[in-house]
This record gives sequence, structure tokens and C-alpha cells, in this order.
Amino acid sequence: MSASVLFHFPFDPGSRAARLALGEARIDWTEVLVRPWEADCPVGDLNPSGMPPVLQVEGPPALTLCEAPAILGWIEDAQKTPLLMPSDAAERAEVRRLTGWFDRRFTDEVNAVLLHERMEKPLLRLGPPEARMLREGREALKHHLGVFEALLAQRDWLAGRRLSQADIVAAAHLSTLDYFGEIAWASWPGLKTWYMRIKSRPCFRPLLADRFQGLAPAPHYADLDF
Amino acid sequence: MSASVLFHFPFDPGSRAARLALGEARIDWTEVLVRPWEADCPVGDLNPSGMPPVLQVEGPPALTLCEAPAILGWIEDAQKTPLLMPSDAAERAEVRRLTGWFDRRFTDEVNAVLLHERMEKPLLRLGPPEARMLREGREALKHHLGVFEALLAQRDWLAGRRLSQADIVAAAHLSTLDYFGEIAWASWPGLKTWYMRIKSRPCFRPLLADRFQGLAPAPHYADLDF
Repeated sequence: MSASVLFHFPFDPGSRAARLALGEARIDWTEVLVRPWEADCPVGDLNPSGMPPVLQVEGPPALTLCEAPAILGWIEDAQKTPLLMPSDAAERAEVRRLTGWFDRRFTDEVNAVLLHERMEKPLLRLGPPEARMLREGREALKHHLGVFEALLAQRDWLAGRRLSQADIVAAAHLSTLDYFGEIAWASWPGLKTWYMRIKSRPCFRPLLADRFQGLAPAPHYADLDF
Repeated sequence: MSASVLFHFPFDPGSRAARLALGEARIDWTEVLVRPWEADCPVGDLNPSGMPPVLQVEGPPALTLCEAPAILGWIEDAQKTPLLMPSDAAERAEVRRLTGWFDRRFTDEVNAVLLHERMEKPLLRLGPPEARMLREGREALKHHLGVFEALLAQRDWLAGRRLSQADIVAAAHLSTLDYFGEIAWASWPGLKTWYMRIKSRPCFRPLLADRFQGLAPAPHYADLDF
């Protein structure tokens, strides 16, 4: 496979999902770190939405893949045997349900509140976080973590018997919040076991080295045994 | 293919996308109309998010497909030859980019404002629409329609050379807004030509017969030549 360039912002969950999936597929890529809120961000010329991640594939055919669903879809299409999409119809349906859940509900109820307060506000100099919003975001997060804990009481991986795009997307979201110390792993033992397993995979290593401007990660962030 | 039951709300764009895709695939189904905001809505027991559409497939294997991405994905998986997913890699990427665009940007910027004011408020008895919100939603819609018009100046269908999931999802959203008279087709000739073509397909007929409580559709809503 020829050279690919990933434009990404390390604390954007979609960008993290793209990096994890590229890692799982052992695709070589070079990276361009971007700050999508800045006017001269190169992603503005590549993706009509202006948002990372964008993967440029040299080809042939040359492709510009905009955002995580296009990147994860392309990676799967390029495999000889299924990698992150199960072949079982019920598990495929679960992958699609759960990635949709993260794209909409988790993003709206958790990220738009909690990542806004903890991440976007310092980046955009919008002032200190609001206690009421932090409380609200944390309550919503707790509800979501309970949903995942219940799923993982019945399954090895989020969508069924094997690692899938659902786990990749979930780990992308949860690892971002984990950097900011927002996940009380001790309360969710099934989820913690799942996260330890996915965090130990080679694809995860680059994410554990990410650093946010002026803020050290939660102490356990990069520990594989936490 | 065995009997399937679709639980749907006729003015939910995701439900419309499912009906259009089932129609294109000529899959027989029976329907259960649901009102997802009511406490006893049967979808609450089928989909953890509580939202339509849900397709129950008798099987084997018996499947419960929650929301449009799972339903459209399953329909495509069940085809012998590609139906609504192109085989070309660039067009597949466009389908995934555009369906994501509708799921997030269009839903957040247009539906959450305009469909909230025009549809959810009367359904939930939340009072009359607010002029300021209507104006804001209509401005956002205009911006989106301009984006689609520009795409359709270069392509026959939204993602490329053939009808795809992107057109199905777009038509589901735009037809909902069209019922409420929110689309000034005369300003968007390329989009209008595209819409006339997709609206003439047999899969569209049931949608044109939908009626919203106490509100007649825009006069041209069901006309194929408008």
C-alpha cells in the first residue's frame, strides 16, 4: 500500500479512531497535526466540513477520505479478510448501532459538554470551566458508561465476539476523556478489563504519548496496568 | 426474504431513509407507526436509544436492526450486486462523508432548529414556533442547499454516477422539510432536477401519502412535476 498522510488533531475522538484503525490494519502513514479552529488549518481545503481527520491516500486511485466513517470504511474495504467489521449479520448491526450511538448521543450528551469545558475552552481561551456544566457532563457520562458496562457483561467486545469498529470508536472517545481524568474506572470493572485489553494493543501506543498543551494526563493515562 | 416489520415515525428522516432503502431493495415489510416521544412507544423495548426506525427481520437469522445506518447496512449486505453502495472507492468515500454530514451537521444545524419549531413543537404541545429560530434554521438550510447544488452541478447523483445511500438519506431529510414547505426549489435548479428524479421512483410513493396531524403538506409536496 502506498504512502498515506493523516491530518489529525490528537484530542479529537474521530482522529483517534482513524489512528487506531490505521494501526490495527498496519497501514503506514505519515501525520500532519492540525488545529481545526485556526483559520489556516489545511483541513479546510481538503474537507468541506473543515474537520479532521482527513486521510490522503496516494493511490492509485488517489483518494481524500474525510472523517472517521470514510477512513474506517476504506480501511475495511481494503482488507482481504474482515478486520474490524464482523461477518455475522447481528454483530454487523451492533457495530453500526454503536458507532451511530457514539457519533450522535455520546457526542451530544457527553463530548459537547465535558470536552467543551475541559478541552475546547482552554484551546479557544473561552475562560474557566463551569461547575454546573461539568456536573451535567459527568452525569451523562456515568449513564453511558453504565450502558457499556452492561454490554460488556455479556460480550468480550462491544459488538460481540471480536474486536470491531465499535471498540475502536469507543476507545477513541473514552481515551480522550481519560486523558482529562474523567473516567472513574474502579466503578466499571467490566469496562476497565475491556479498556486494559484494547489499550495494550500496539495501535494504542501513539495515543498514550499524546500531550495536551499545559496539562499533564491523568496519572494512570499511559499505564497499561492501571 | 422472510417477513420484516418496520417500526417508524413517518416524519423522522431516519425512518424515511429506511423506507426508501427497503423500497429500492424491493423488500416486503409490514409497518408499525410509532410516536417515539410517548412513554409506551414499542421502540423503547427494541432499541436502547428509544428511537425509530427499528426493523425486525424474522430471519433466520432473526435480527433487530436499530436505526437507519444498521438498516441500510443490512440491506446492502443482503444484495447479490451493489445496490446503494457504489463499488468505486472514491464514491464509497463520498457516500460515507455525505451520510455523516446529514447525521451530524444537517441534523444539528437544520433539523434541530427547523424541524423542532415546525414539527416537534406541535407534536409535544410546546407552543408556537419562534420567528428568530425559524429565521436561523432557514439560513442554515440555505447554506446546506447551496452545498448540495454545487455537488449536483458536477454529478448526476450526490456521491457520484449512481444512486446511493447518500441520495436516500438526503431525500429522506429534504422530503421531510418539503412537507412543511421549507424548500424554495426554484432557487436550486440542479437540486430540483435531482429531487424530481428521486421523487419519481416507486420507493418514494408511500412517503408522498404521509400526512402530519392537522397540517396539510405544501401544495407541491406530492406532485412529481412541481
